[in-house]
Order: sequence, then C-alpha cells, then structure tokens
Amino acid sequence: MIPVSERMYALGSNRSEIRELFEYGKKRIAEVGKENVFDFSLGNPSVPAPACVKETLKKLVEQTDPVLLHGYTSAQGDASVRKACADFIRSKHGAECGENDFYLTCGAAASLSISLSAIAGAGDEVIVLAPFFPEYRVFIAQAGMKCVEVKCREEDFQIDLDAFEKAVGPHTKAVIVNSPNNPSGAVFSRETIEKLASILSSAEKKNGRPVYILADEPYRELVYDEGIEVPFIPNFYNDTIVCYSFSKSLSLPGERIGYIFVSPKAAFHSEVYFAVCGAGRALGYVCAPALFQRMIPACLGKTSDISVYKVNRDLLCRELSAYGFQVGRPDGAFYLFLKAMEPDARAFCERAKAHDLLIVPSDSFGFPGYARIAYCVSTDMIRRSLPAFKALAEEYR
Amino acid sequence: MIPVSERMYALGSNRSEIRELFEYGKKRIAEVGKENVFDFSLGNPSVPAPACVKETLKKLVEQTDPVLLHGYTSAQGDASVRKACADFIRSKHGAECGENDFYLTCGAAASLSISLSAIAGAGDEVIVLAPFFPEYRVFIAQAGMKCVEVKCREEDFQIDLDAFEKAVGPHTKAVIVNSPNNPSGAVFSRETIEKLASILSSAEKKNGRPVYILADEPYRELVYDEGIEVPFIPNFYNDTIVCYSFSKSLSLPGERIGYIFVSPKAAFHSEVYFAVCGAGRALGYVCAPALFQRMIPACLGKTSDISVYKVNRDLLCRELSAYGFQVGRPDGAFYLFLKAMEPDARAFCERAKAHDLLIVPSDSFGFPGYARIAYCVSTDMIRRSLPAFKALAEEYR
Repeated sequence: MIPVSERMYALGSNRSEIRELFEYGKKRIAEVGKENVFDFSLGNPSVPAPACVKETLKKLVEQTDPVLLHGYTSAQGDASVRKACADFIRSKHGAECGENDFYLTCGAAASLSISLSAIAGAGDEVIVLAPFFPEYRVFIAQAGMKCVEVKCREEDFQIDLDAFEKAVGPHTKAVIVNSPNNPSGAVFSRETIEKLASILSSAEKKNGRPVYILADEPYRELVYDEGIEVPFIPNFYNDTIVCYSFSKSLSLPGERIGYIFVSPKAAFHSEVYFAVCGAGRALGYVCAPALFQRMIPACLGKTSDISVYKVNRDLLCRELSAYGFQVGRPDGAFYLFLKAMEPDARAFCERAKAHDLLIVPSDSFGFPGYARIAYCVSTDMIRRSLPAFKALAEEYR
Repeated sequence: MIPVSERMYALGSNRSEIRELFEYGKKRIAEVGKENVFDFSLGNPSVPAPACVKETLKKLVEQTDPVLLHGYTSAQGDASVRKACADFIRSKHGAECGENDFYLTCGAAASLSISLSAIAGAGDEVIVLAPFFPEYRVFIAQAGMKCVEVKCREEDFQIDLDAFEKAVGPHTKAVIVNSPNNPSGAVFSRETIEKLASILSSAEKKNGRPVYILADEPYRELVYDEGIEVPFIPNFYNDTIVCYSFSKSLSLPGERIGYIFVSPKAAFHSEVYFAVCGAGRALGYVCAPALFQRMIPACLGKTSDISVYKVNRDLLCRELSAYGFQVGRPDGAFYLFLKAMEPDARAFCERAKAHDLLIVPSDSFGFPGYARIAYCVSTDMIRRSLPAFKALAEEYR
C-alpha cells in the first residue's frame, strides 16, 4: 500500500492521453527535429495574443503602483473588473447582470471544478455529452458526483435529444454543455439549445429542484463562418452557470484567467454564488492572478487573429477528404474530429505516430473510433504534414 | 434545503474573520477617510515588489514570443524554472534536489491544498500547531482528513513538544509547520525542529508508514535580526514537503505563484510527487500562471525591502508595551500577537474597532485571548494609530 491518496497517485502517474502525447512530441522533436514532427495533440493556440494584451500588460507594469497591482484582490475578483465583465455581457448578449454575478477564476478548468464542487450533493449525477473533454470525468469525481455519458448524434455531433431526455432523472444535478465543442468542433444550434432547455425545465418541475447547465465556453469566439450563431445559454435557460476562459480567445492558456458567471435568473442565485465562493476557498484558489485580472477590461471582446484557424480548417478538411478520410466540417473551436480508418482509434493513432503525426484517439473523449486533430498550429506545419496523412490513408487502402 | 453543497455554501457565506474585517475596513474608509482607519487586518505586503520583478516582467512581455510566453507549460511547471528553483535550494540550503522534486503552484494556499489532497487517506489526521492560519482547517477538511490542534507554549510560542508527542498517534499523517509563524511571528528554533523530527521519526517506526511535515513557508525570508536562523526542515527530516510562496517575499500576493518541493529524501518520493501532480489536476489547476513562472529565475533569493517591517515591529513593540499591552517580540513574518486585555478576544477587538483599529481576534487561529496585528502597513499609519492604541489601553485601566 502506498502512503498517499490512491486516486491522486493514479491521476498523477497516468497522465491524460493528450498530455502524454504532447510530452512524447517534445521528446521526438529532440530526436528528429522540429520540422519532422507534426504535433496536433494540444489545444495550445498558435497565434499570438492580440496587441491589447501586450500593451495592457506593459502599461499596467509600468504605470500602476506595484503594491496595488500585485496585491490581493477580493476572493471573487476585483470589483471593477467584474463590473467590466458584466457590462460586456449585458451589451453583447443582452443578458441582465451585474458584478455580483461574476467570480474570476484561474481559467476554465478552475471554473468547472469550482462550479461542480459548489453544486455537488450526495448521489447527484452530472450528464456529459460525448464526445467531451476527458478532464470532465476527473472534475466530476473530485466533486463526489457521478458522471453520466450521453452520446451526440454521429452525423452532425449535435445533441441526441431523445437519448438525453432518457438520461435525465431524479438525480440529475447538472449537464455540461461545451459549444463550440472540444473535440468535435460542433456548435450546438439555437434549436438544440431550446429543446435542451425545455427538457431540463420539465425535469426541474418533476424533481422539485434546479438542474444546472454548466456552459463550458472557452471556445465561444472561435467560429469561422458567417451566420454561425453560438447561442448564449443564460438567455435560453435560467439555471445556467457559464464557465468562461480567456485562454483560447486571447491565446493565454498558460496564464489561467477566466470567470464563472452565475445567471442572475437562476432560482437560487445567491446560494449558488456563495457556494462558488466557498468552493474556490476550499480548493485553495484565494483569487485569480491579479495582473491578468486587471488586463481583462481592455481586452473584452477582442480575440487573437483567428483567421489562421479558418485557413487551417479549410486546408485540412479539403486535403484529408481528398485522401479518403471521413471528416466533418467543424464550425468552431480548433479541432477536427477524424473518423479512424479502423475500429480501434488507439491503433489508428499509433499508426499515425509512426508517420510522426501526433493525433489523439477519441476513446478518452467518450466517443470511440475517432481521432482529434488540434489545428491551432502553423499552416506551414499542416502543409508539411500532408504527405504523412496521405501515406497513412494509403496504408488503409 | 438548498440545492448546492451545504459545506461550500457555509464557507462562501461565512467569510473568514480576516476577510470580513478587511471588507469592513474598506467600507469604513469610505465613511471616515483613509487617514482615520487603522487597518491591521490583512497580510498584504505594503512594500513594493523588488526591482527585479518589474524589470523581468517588462523584459518578458517585450522580448518573448507571446505564444511561448503565455502558452501552457507542463502541469508541474516549466522545466527550466523548476531547475532554477532546485539550483537555488541546493546552493542556499545545501539540500540535494533536482527539477523533478518541484511542482509550481498558484501560491501557498494551493501548495497546501494540493499537498493535503495528495497524501490524504481515510481516517488520517493532520496536526496543526496553534496559533495557526485558520484556513488550515478548511484545507484539511477538503482533503477529507481530521484536524488535530496542539497549542504552542504561551511564553515563547515555540512548539510544546510534550503536548505534541502526546497528540501524535497511529492515524497521524502529517503536521503542518509554519515558521516564521502566522500569527505569532515566532521562528521555530533548530533545537525545536530537531526534537520535532525525532518525535516524528519514532512515530514513523511505530506506525510503519511515513508521517509528513508540511512546511508552510511563505515567510521564510522575513526575519529581522542577526543570528535568527530559520532551519530548512528537509535538512532535518526526510519526509518533508515544503509549501512555498513568493507572495510575501516578493510582495506578490495577488499573483498566486509558489511551489511544492517534495524532498528527494522522502521515503516514497515518487509516489508523493505523482500524487501531488494528480491532486493539482483533480483540483483544476492545470499549471501555475506562466508569466510569473518565468519571472522566478531572475528573482530567486531576492526580497522586497523588508527593513520597513523591522522598523514597524520595533516601533509597535516599544509603544504598545509602554501603553501597558503585553506583547512578545516576534522574530519573523509581519505579525504581532497581542494579548487581549480581557478574556474574550472578540470583545477586545470590537472595542478596538470603536477606535477604528482593525485587528483580528485570535479565536479562529485556535489560540483564544489574543489579537493579530498585521504590521505590513506604512510606518506612518502605525504612528497615526498610536493614540488609538493608547486610548484602548486606557479603557482597561
């Protein structure tokens, strides 16, 4: 027996498949050179942060009293920053809200783990819509709840509403909705969200207690075509908690900055908000990084130059289809969900690895038979990788 | 019944006494003006970060590729930063260690909550030495362990080794050692640490499993007199996990940057280290803020100008003694532990509040009958506060 937590040891010694592949990539680069490894493993934005980030950071560091700049903020975040977030959400989405609906966090993972711990009760279940970000399982287990998986429709990766309705029961406490989706790239339509909301409203009445939507939205701004709407879920469903992160929109994934927005229309708003504050405290968060909190007001609504991702998506979709791969056309995020050319996606990705193509098998996303390609990489790398993809496809002829 | 976690709701709606007082102070300042409120509530450093912080931040923001600068690091932190920490600890304290003994965190609270979750087993107990930072109780409960309180000796706030030895039992998993101490300002002597180590070594043999020291060390550099040694605990006891933060030494409490150092001499080093990685993952930390990680190498071993704190300590000790207060002379940290002039410290602090003196009653620190004065404030504010302290003392004549 080991003298530490078995669960934590298992989580630490078995790294996530994505992280594992990323570490392998770094090793492989050292062996064969950067130009010969095609690492599509990690959702690490490849385009630099927008100018507002650098300018604001410089200005803050140069002009603000360091005692104030780097000092503690309130646990829920600096009040003026929270107000700026509320003003932005109000004007952008028309949702009534104020500073006391916002709690600043160390990014989306923190937003989710805090929110889940906040709402958790004994015996509660959380529904996740496969394919989903594998760490959901970890965060739900940490909060002491049960993870219930419901598969999306394979034809378009929209929510399978019949299957979803069947999965909702008396113990359902929440459903995590991630749109634009990691890893499928699907954007859940307004119609889908409306129907989801209607199913959950019925469940609330039946259960006599709230069922929350946790809207995991790090990819909100990352959509590439005219007319693609990303519905703002609090406008469709009252008991919504938005878990937002600036990691992807501002290309700041290492800085850990985001927020939790508890919709003021939620039935037990102040209970949820206080529980969020309590969970942040219990998990040791104290406050979100102060300098990056203060950067937020100048950068709200801005994004990195995401046109590169559109170029990448279009290039990959066109070429991979031509080689015979079955690939949807993702509307958002920066992931492409590729059908594996054999039933076992892990075996497929191992064969890709032999071509130094690092793509993630979909098993851990709860949707076997696919591979995730993170196309937040240089277009040049994609071009150089195409012969490898072609060779891979030819192996399956 | 509320539809959220009762525990988290309680933690969020009942703020810590310290935070509560700090928020009151902000309100009071708005009412009567900054110059009339003497806020000694919070351990928020009052001296600016040293020049290396501003210079390094500016240089990093101006000269580093933003994709690299703000990108994800490995979960345990950037390898070159961890190596710099190891090199520093090796040369400063002569402790053999390397980059794989370090795990970078979002500050001391994160270091503690991650470490506690990492080592937690069912039925385990953690000993805390009163007076202690009140959040220890929260972090220990979060990890699912039992908090066992042992009082320090009232005459010098060193560890009461007899009482400690009696408290150590078959379920003892760890003891949290915080020196220089918050709130007493005591620095545990080398002799005390040696005896503590000897008691714990016996317990390890008896129990047949490790008993960890969690060395909570945000105040390590904050000592004010020649000849005061802060023993580096891993040199005295193998099963030590150091929970360090740069918050106080570099005046960066809002930025949340620190580390966990698992001594390579710990019996189950790799199990502990992996469990730390797992706990960081489960609690949603992903990685420590990247920009501040990269700031570390240039700032190791540097501190803010702490001479101000010495001036403050000496001034307060001299004047408060003259007014009739019973006050020790703290060797380190930036807290003064004042004996309340009536048995009920909360009543005493309420009477202080009537003079706009904001000091924290010691009850939540597990050591009733005292008040904590955080003297990380301007010397000028201390001078202005002296008549209020005098008036308070006179009320008790």
